[in-house]
Amino acid sequence: MLAENKTSFRVTYSDTDQMGYMHHSNYLKYYETARWELFRNIGIPYRELEEQGILLPVVDTSIKYLKPALYDQHLKITTRLEAIRGARILFRYITENESGEVINEAGIAVACVRKSTGKACIPPKWITEILKNPTT
Amino acid sequence: MLAENKTSFRVTYSDTDQMGYMHHSNYLKYYETARWELFRNIGIPYRELEEQGILLPVVDTSIKYLKPALYDQHLKITTRLEAIRGARILFRYITENESGEVINEAGIAVACVRKSTGKACIPPKWITEILKNPTT
Amino acid sequence: MLAENKTSFRVTYSDTDQMGYMHHSNYLKYYETARWELFRNIGIPYRELEEQGILLPVVDTSIKYLKPALYDQHLKITTRLEAIRGARILFRYITENESGEVINEAGIAVACVRKSTGKACIPPKWITEILKNPTT
Amino acid sequence: MLAENKTSFRVTYSDTDQMGYMHHSNYLKYYETARWELFRNIGIPYRELEEQGILLPVVDTSIKYLKPALYDQHLKITTRLEAIRGARILFRYITENESGEVINEAGIAVACVRKSTGKACIPPKWITEILKNPTT
Repeated sequence: MLAENKTSFRVTYSDTDQMGYMHHSNYLKYYETARWELFRNIGIPYRELEEQGILLPVVDTSIKYLKPALYDQHLKITTRLEAIRGARILFRYITENESGEVINEAGIAVACVRKSTGKACIPPKWITEILKNPTT
Repeated sequence: MLAENKTSFRVTYSDTDQMGYMHHSNYLKYYETARWELFRNIGIPYRELEEQGILLPVVDTSIKYLKPALYDQHLKITTRLEAIRGARILFRYITENESGEVINEAGIAVACVRKSTGKACIPPKWITEILKNPTT
Repeated sequence: MLAENKTSFRVTYSDTDQMGYMHHSNYLKYYETARWELFRNIGIPYRELEEQGILLPVVDTSIKYLKPALYDQHLKITTRLEAIRGARILFRYITENESGEVINEAGIAVACVRKSTGKACIPPKWITEILKNPTT
Repeated sequence: MLAENKTSFRVTYSDTDQMGYMHHSNYLKYYETARWELFRNIGIPYRELEEQGILLPVVDTSIKYLKPALYDQHLKITTRLEAIRGARILFRYITENESGEVINEAGIAVACVRKSTGKACIPPKWITEILKNPTT
């Protein structure tokens, strides 16, 4: 079973804009945090990856904004590993509001990059194996 | 000729993250500013649209990160109207670095929404006509 | 006993800058969230205050950065009501890192403003009384 | 004559919050950019300082918010070197709106830190001399 994770967050005041919606750029921040929570839960804190010389910068994002998120709402994010292709690891995201409505959907790809060279690389096998078969 | 606009910006220190790249969420902020600069240039300041009860929230984004943007780099954004479909207005973006390399490409759709109802609507004709045939 | 509250947060990747520190502007965001958590805990969700036509914008901030906050650290914020003076409500903040070291200290004042007029006003008595004598 | 600089910026949509004001945390970002523009103008790009192993993190901020800043307003920042004391360099800031009203005042101190050790240090003399007697 591919790695999957659920997290939640509350829309902060600084997340909002004068339209009264959470500004659309903030989903990328929350999805990033959700992604590293998934990694933490399967035993790979992203902080340690960087210490070992591996970076996972975002290389592709695609987001559908179905309904606005409002100040103080408690939102749930489901993060799922979708695929690993070459240097890329792909994740799917769904955000639900307090009523269980899906308000946002996204696909985000990160690339495995060696810090020392700045070049993309195939992710180490121990990482991809845990991602594909997390024990927790 | 469909509306088109060129703007530029310098990557600020707060835009960066500890990877040393501009954080990927910031493109959405700069593309938003570039979009409203395009609107300003063709004579439709977004501020006035909101005052007239029309909101243009982002409903769909798709971004390819080809190369990282670094602190203090002076980047150029080209914004082009791509299409108007129903309530949606679609824009294409290209970001180039100081060497003229394309480092980021994006497609962003906004929806025309009436502030009073919160419902999507066909954009007023005077807006779509200027967008499709800007005089400047 | 004046209102007091403890919250915690984890430094996110987007909070960092290329120095490897949490960017100094983020404390204002976390202190804002901590302030409204204090309000929520004493039975006054800030969202409801705004719905009743009362805004509490920040009017004065003073922050001492004693030690940097780093990515993924779990930080604790203690928020204390310090005083109510005219239209102003003053809060004191302390942030501690995982080792219990105080890494940041701040004083932040908000002003009570009527949404309808945009003018400062004396905070309603029911609010100041709960702030000065919270039952929880 | 101590170093001084004037810059301007336009409040972006993502700077605003649902109160309709520029969120108070953004001043710290604009003041940072204004500070490094001052450095660039006197011939010391901050990027080069970091490359030479010197960091100038913020250690103390004090801000008075006199009037709100609104979306799309074109604001002017005046940045002045105030003093150099030990490892600290102090700056004063004033922000004016389009009508010339002062809407924000701040004092911000940065500390000179060696990247290699993470310790505060007396700023190199060539830097303090240009700051105190800029030729441009």
